[in-house]
Amino acid sequence: MRLTSFSDYAFRLLMMADAAGDRLITIEEAAKRYRISRAHLMKVANQLTRTGFLEAVRGRSGGLQLARPASEIRIGDVIRSTEPDFGLVECFLTGNTCVITGYCRLPRILNEALDAFISTMNRYTLADISLTKVNVLLPSEPQLTAP
Amino acid sequence: MRLTSFSDYAFRLLMMADAAGDRLITIEEAAKRYRISRAHLMKVANQLTRTGFLEAVRGRSGGLQLARPASEIRIGDVIRSTEPDFGLVECFLTGNTCVITGYCRLPRILNEALDAFISTMNRYTLADISLTKVNVLLPSEPQLTAP
Repeated sequence: MRLTSFSDYAFRLLMMADAAGDRLITIEEAAKRYRISRAHLMKVANQLTRTGFLEAVRGRSGGLQLARPASEIRIGDVIRSTEPDFGLVECFLTGNTCVITGYCRLPRILNEALDAFISTMNRYTLADISLTKVNVLLPSEPQLTAP
Repeated sequence: MRLTSFSDYAFRLLMMADAAGDRLITIEEAAKRYRISRAHLMKVANQLTRTGFLEAVRGRSGGLQLARPASEIRIGDVIRSTEPDFGLVECFLTGNTCVITGYCRLPRILNEALDAFISTMNRYTLADISLTKVNVLLPSEPQLTAP
């Protein structure tokens, strides 16, 4: 059982925006710091902007920032919006051909377990996973230049 | 977020063995009734036998049966044994290169959510999902032969 890398990258981007505080971050910067695909991050950023987790500021000195305080961004809500589906078994998806559909009582249990999974994550917000050592991601002091 | 079809098929096989009661079931029969791959079901059956959920009876009239009463087979335990991994995010897997590993507090929350997912399923056993309309899977009366 896995989450998509899309969800994984969404958290990395949100955590970076959180760590940056008032400063805007850019896809460029995130791709470089995390050493992951710029194109993939762009898609993630677009989705997070569309779903109201990030805010895009346009213009030459534009970039991304959290659309609301980290304490108002629940972890489970992020995953619910970034995962393409929660198709745990065939009958949760379109094109299902399982012959016991309608008689089987497994889906009810899986849905209950899924609710427990999301609810547990929704007890936490982005503020609970703020990076305590921010300079892992962000330069903490001006770069020295060679004499 | 999906489970593998391996887990899905494992439940179908266990539910069929449960429905059959004392009668042994065969891979052949399960593949035909469920209209799924015999080869795939064979692997699933081998794994369920190895992990103590099914028992294989050898010989000409051999087949498969539950290795213990349905009420002693917990749903979460089955999934734990049939899923190849629970690699929710990159750092849960080998070959992880995420640069914030060690500073990031997301894994703890994901693990807690995963525990809630499995624990919820472990409140139920195979007996809770016994097929009430058994003839969906098993012939309920002898086949008539043409005169």
